[in-house]
Amino acid sequence: MSGWTWCYEGYDPAEEGLRESLCTVGNGYLATRGAAPESSADGVHYPGTYAAGVYNRLETEISGKGVENESLVNLPNWLPVTFRVEGGPWFDIDAAEILEYRQCLDLRRAVLTRRFRYRDGAGRTTAVTQRRFADMRFAHACALEVTITPEDWSGRLELRSALDGRVANTLVDRYRDLASGHLQTVDTRELGEDSCLLETQTSQSKIRVAMAARSTLWRGERRCDAERRLVEEPSWIGHDVAVDVAAGDSVTLEKIVTVFTGRDRAVSEPAAEAARWLPRMGRFGTLLEDHCLAWTQLWERFDVRIEGEQHALRTVRLHLLHLLQTLSPNTVDLDVGVPARGLHGEAYRGHVLWDELFVFPLLNLRVPDLTRALLRYRYRRLPEAREAARAAGLRGAMYPWQSGSDGREENQRLHLNPMSGRWLPDPTWRQHHIGIAVAYNVWHYYQATGDREFLTHYGTRMLVEIAWFWSSLASYDRRCGRYVIRGVMGPDEFHSDYPGATGDGIDNNAYTNVMAVWVILRAIDALSLIPEQARRELMRTVGLQDGELARWRDISRSMFVPFHDGVISQFEGYEDLAELDWEGYRRRYGDIQRLDRILEAEGDDVNRYKASKQADVLMLFYLLSADELGPLFDRLGYGLDRDAIPRNIDYYLVRTSHGSTLSAVVHAWVLARAHRERAMEFFVRTLRADITDIQGGTTPEGIHLAAMAGSVDLLQRCFSGLETREDRLLLNPYWPESLGTLTLPLRYREHPLLLRISGNRVDVTAGPGMQQPIEIECRGQTAELTPGSTVRFPL
Amino acid sequence: MSGWTWCYEGYDPAEEGLRESLCTVGNGYLATRGAAPESSADGVHYPGTYAAGVYNRLETEISGKGVENESLVNLPNWLPVTFRVEGGPWFDIDAAEILEYRQCLDLRRAVLTRRFRYRDGAGRTTAVTQRRFADMRFAHACALEVTITPEDWSGRLELRSALDGRVANTLVDRYRDLASGHLQTVDTRELGEDSCLLETQTSQSKIRVAMAARSTLWRGERRCDAERRLVEEPSWIGHDVAVDVAAGDSVTLEKIVTVFTGRDRAVSEPAAEAARWLPRMGRFGTLLEDHCLAWTQLWERFDVRIEGEQHALRTVRLHLLHLLQTLSPNTVDLDVGVPARGLHGEAYRGHVLWDELFVFPLLNLRVPDLTRALLRYRYRRLPEAREAARAAGLRGAMYPWQSGSDGREENQRLHLNPMSGRWLPDPTWRQHHIGIAVAYNVWHYYQATGDREFLTHYGTRMLVEIAWFWSSLASYDRRCGRYVIRGVMGPDEFHSDYPGATGDGIDNNAYTNVMAVWVILRAIDALSLIPEQARRELMRTVGLQDGELARWRDISRSMFVPFHDGVISQFEGYEDLAELDWEGYRRRYGDIQRLDRILEAEGDDVNRYKASKQADVLMLFYLLSADELGPLFDRLGYGLDRDAIPRNIDYYLVRTSHGSTLSAVVHAWVLARAHRERAMEFFVRTLRADITDIQGGTTPEGIHLAAMAGSVDLLQRCFSGLETREDRLLLNPYWPESLGTLTLPLRYREHPLLLRISGNRVDVTAGPGMQQPIEIECRGQTAELTPGSTVRFPL
Repeated sequence: MSGWTWCYEGYDPAEEGLRESLCTVGNGYLATRGAAPESSADGVHYPGTYAAGVYNRLETEISGKGVENESLVNLPNWLPVTFRVEGGPWFDIDAAEILEYRQCLDLRRAVLTRRFRYRDGAGRTTAVTQRRFADMRFAHACALEVTITPEDWSGRLELRSALDGRVANTLVDRYRDLASGHLQTVDTRELGEDSCLLETQTSQSKIRVAMAARSTLWRGERRCDAERRLVEEPSWIGHDVAVDVAAGDSVTLEKIVTVFTGRDRAVSEPAAEAARWLPRMGRFGTLLEDHCLAWTQLWERFDVRIEGEQHALRTVRLHLLHLLQTLSPNTVDLDVGVPARGLHGEAYRGHVLWDELFVFPLLNLRVPDLTRALLRYRYRRLPEAREAARAAGLRGAMYPWQSGSDGREENQRLHLNPMSGRWLPDPTWRQHHIGIAVAYNVWHYYQATGDREFLTHYGTRMLVEIAWFWSSLASYDRRCGRYVIRGVMGPDEFHSDYPGATGDGIDNNAYTNVMAVWVILRAIDALSLIPEQARRELMRTVGLQDGELARWRDISRSMFVPFHDGVISQFEGYEDLAELDWEGYRRRYGDIQRLDRILEAEGDDVNRYKASKQADVLMLFYLLSADELGPLFDRLGYGLDRDAIPRNIDYYLVRTSHGSTLSAVVHAWVLARAHRERAMEFFVRTLRADITDIQGGTTPEGIHLAAMAGSVDLLQRCFSGLETREDRLLLNPYWPESLGTLTLPLRYREHPLLLRISGNRVDVTAGPGMQQPIEIECRGQTAELTPGSTVRFPL
Repeated sequence: MSGWTWCYEGYDPAEEGLRESLCTVGNGYLATRGAAPESSADGVHYPGTYAAGVYNRLETEISGKGVENESLVNLPNWLPVTFRVEGGPWFDIDAAEILEYRQCLDLRRAVLTRRFRYRDGAGRTTAVTQRRFADMRFAHACALEVTITPEDWSGRLELRSALDGRVANTLVDRYRDLASGHLQTVDTRELGEDSCLLETQTSQSKIRVAMAARSTLWRGERRCDAERRLVEEPSWIGHDVAVDVAAGDSVTLEKIVTVFTGRDRAVSEPAAEAARWLPRMGRFGTLLEDHCLAWTQLWERFDVRIEGEQHALRTVRLHLLHLLQTLSPNTVDLDVGVPARGLHGEAYRGHVLWDELFVFPLLNLRVPDLTRALLRYRYRRLPEAREAARAAGLRGAMYPWQSGSDGREENQRLHLNPMSGRWLPDPTWRQHHIGIAVAYNVWHYYQATGDREFLTHYGTRMLVEIAWFWSSLASYDRRCGRYVIRGVMGPDEFHSDYPGATGDGIDNNAYTNVMAVWVILRAIDALSLIPEQARRELMRTVGLQDGELARWRDISRSMFVPFHDGVISQFEGYEDLAELDWEGYRRRYGDIQRLDRILEAEGDDVNRYKASKQADVLMLFYLLSADELGPLFDRLGYGLDRDAIPRNIDYYLVRTSHGSTLSAVVHAWVLARAHRERAMEFFVRTLRADITDIQGGTTPEGIHLAAMAGSVDLLQRCFSGLETREDRLLLNPYWPESLGTLTLPLRYREHPLLLRISGNRVDVTAGPGMQQPIEIECRGQTAELTPGSTVRFPL
């Protein structure tokens, strides 16, 4: 296998779910999924495509409580192509004798190829090759090509190519009791002798979605004379094409599909658009050429090269491929956020959580205009976040923990423990720290790009509203003479409550309190950076007074942070929790990532223990370097001694079950400085997260987008020690030598740079078109990089 | 009248159409229109609201030819409020004896107030005051307040407040034979005792539009106990509210309305959004306060002050008000263009033509992010423009002369001459110079802002595609050894053909040929300005080869430009046309603006004459200063002597009927240098264009947005001689002293500046927050403006 292909040999029905999720091909506009390509025409194996940001509200009854929620809508399935020989049964992969089977995802071109040979009941041997892609150049097109070669027989071959609207959200087992049908068919019609149209509408949000397909048959470059017949069923339309074939001769079906939704821009009505654009689409090969060019250009921007560990590099590329299929230049103009599982599966119902915290810093230094567009997704939902704060009796903006199209809190109120079968209250909406993620990303986008226009029109407003939320949630506690924040949840979802309490959250989560101060300081910084007129207008518009700003400054100096045993406490009262018998539980259960479910099934409660699902205090060291964190603690009057960071890492590392794929990213990050070997262990774990489905079944429900991006960012920012802070580019590599020299292109404040890091030196080269000198700092040494030159720092 | 109010005294049914168009209040998201406020509940007088960019395709049969076209959709009418006394007839303004009537548009706050007193058949005197606005802060809200005071009677007062979906596009007489109903009602329902909802869908484009209304009754600050009743009719829903009133006591109905469409962002389903946001809306006064704050901030950005001619200033503000109701910060996130008649009427069916050419240069120096958003409207339609070029056998992008949502050419194929009653072919789609307008705006946005990110991602691509179109349309003519462009139309719509020919357009329109060269040169400039990687990618993506670039350079040196009698010919062969007996026609017809219709009705053809509807050659002097034009002609090997410009002006001025409101803008502009008195005459004509409806009936069909913006730009860029060219800010005032000193704030490349111009000097002051020095040139003198300082140029 080269560094650019991802292959599976052999047909393995048990592995199909995982393979399917990992071999998804698509682009930012829609993602294509499909298991065994032509195994049946009934749609079950064709989960189809998703349109970014098209959500549907679902209402269902769980344990007597109505639960309203939003679900990503499964688009019509454009993949159905099947065939039969001499009027026999339609091809069924499970009934065939498979002689060879090979499935390859071409990472460089985002094309999925399947080749197989089989023998049917009549002893005929047939070879089948399928290629498909969702067009990265023209985001409204997908293309599929199926070539069939009768090896040892001649006769009548019938191919069936269709569009299927009978799709449902059924990928996640535990959601199967919820409403799963989100698409209604409006119309099916034939557009011409080889083309048909399927027009649908989402059931609640009433968004039109239309697809048109053109299916043509070829022998090499010659169009086949074939017998054609329209085939229609409810919500399903296609053509049967029959042709005589001879042994050794191949015929190829090309299926070109256009798709439009009512959320697209520059369109009239989606069905009219799909029908209008279809005849403009060239042949498979022409579309493929343009698609590949678009990917070549994307890969240039996202180039990562390391000399060692080529398997790791291939996984990193797989991760980038999936990231870029979900978020790409094609999404810049759409109103889409970053769903936790990409556009690959239905887990979390496609909701947007805090995953962007692990994604945007990577994008900032590659395609910052994409980050900008994605931040505007949050900006558009500021009015809703303001209303949420107001409804909670607070000020500013309270961003939702889980959300969909309209920016409301979509967190489930109840969730199921599959181990106990019990439905339990879900208090995770208390993770108001989502606002920290939004604010952090605003600031880091600005630091990486210097985009003052964004800061003026959007960024500062978001920072100010989020800072205000924290200020209004914080209260002054006379006892300790400090500000406290009560009733929240930190990133660690094992701690939603104090033992025995019911649903009030925990108090003074260290991560939340410290980062709230950081957000407040950045809001103050931003206000001083934007033009005076804009600042005046913003303050009047949001109703911010100088008195409130004074309170912010006060909070920024006297926020409470809990400590115990020489470490930062995850939250106030953490020290009183019991120690868990980690060894005992590991022995008894093996995999204890979801310790919460184990304990609940035992009648116990994970809230009782010093046990974390994922990094919480340690998130501080992930987001802020020691150089940034030190002065922040100093300002709060605490101070962090030299060894504080490793001490905290050691303390929490042994008390964490890593029940989230993000945990490995964060731990690799924080360990990179002190424990390089252990960092590599977590880096490898991050690379394995989806490809080996380490959480046992979660990958087939959709890939873990944040962990995928995080794995790349471990190379880009962590091991390189790259920071964009205080208007400077800082480097401080702790480079794992086993990876060999790293080479990657970056954009910093519109300057194209090429970064090269090895175990003993760092080179930064000015890319072509760099306009003016920039200052770069590496471990205290400062150098000016001028256009056309390279600066080198020995390590 | 102060400089900020626009009032009419007395009720004049004959003037209602004009007043209505001029007193429209709304904002960029939607515009509100309404005639006599409570005259009836039947909707006829309530043309309602338009949503920007919501178009519907209409298909109709004219003279045996199917004509497909797009029409701006009239949104449901939210205005209906009427009342009756003691169970009598509902108020009908035409049946009442009007004692006083005054209608005032508050320009500063964009609030329309109507006050009237009337006596009814029973001799009762009643005073009515109505205020209304469409919220500039929260673009999804509108508010209306009606206060009724029985002056000399007591009794039962019933008010009726409703939402009306029975709207149609009926404002333009000559379109009445076309389909006029574009909205279908999906549902009406009561949301609560004072709230109701109307859910509709556009008939062809299937866009959901929903409105919810809350109607509450007040005596001062006290909520009234009132008897309430839901009233429903097909596509119409409202509440009747009955209350006892005493002489001299007032009751006030507050109607707060929310509106959402399926084209909005950050929404789920529009009806759900309208219902959800309605209860969050505060009272009329609270909304008004926020609305006014938003307008205060807008007026700060669009401040214009002159000491003289306060009536002119008031008209300029009226123009800005209507401009900002159509295009504002609220439109930045919408996919909307610049409809010729704003959002005020149905002429041109709401189509987007070239009006932005007269709008964006004004916006560039005030709210450049708005221009950027509007340019992206064109960028999104680049694929369609490319397909149009391809269908015509050309390369690059052929932008449509008239277009709607999907960017297709929506020009009518036939148009009616109301004077002859004949349907005639409409060849105006040959005005490919629309592409010049798009390219000009891209370049000028860049020059005013220095926004390289836009140039890199969007601007250069547009310039290149448009340049390529011109290159592919141009052919090399061996006879003259130059490139020629045949079969087009210039801006002057009187010349679609040579006399006797049928529909092939004219050849070598000077404006088109010269500006095509200008576009080609700017495309080459842009390619050299963007980063190398982006340039390489762009060229590969569009398939541009170095050979084509060489052809561009060749064209830029040898494009053919026709001349005759020492002037630039409007097009090749213009000199052979007959001279028109202007005096005779003026005598016979009075108004000869639409000479084309007059001649056609006489059996003659305007194509036979040296007669222009509007500026054509002179557009060159409008778009390019003599300093820019000179080198361009030199490059082409023609050269313009010193007096060429005034000579051309004199030649064409006497041969123009000014049948477009734009003609006055352009003529004022080109005359400003040589004939200051005549320039003022055209400036005044521009100011009068809509307020006196100089074209006799076109204003009630919608205001002329480009002329409105153009009138402001005459102050901002023309009389000031302001240019943003070659990375510099240039000034060259020819200031009409009668206007007194001009003061206006500008943004140039992110720098806030304050410009002050009088007859004898220019002051430019650095605004607060200016970061670095800039160079300013005034009539050959150059000065550096440093932060905090002022530079002065004596004239």
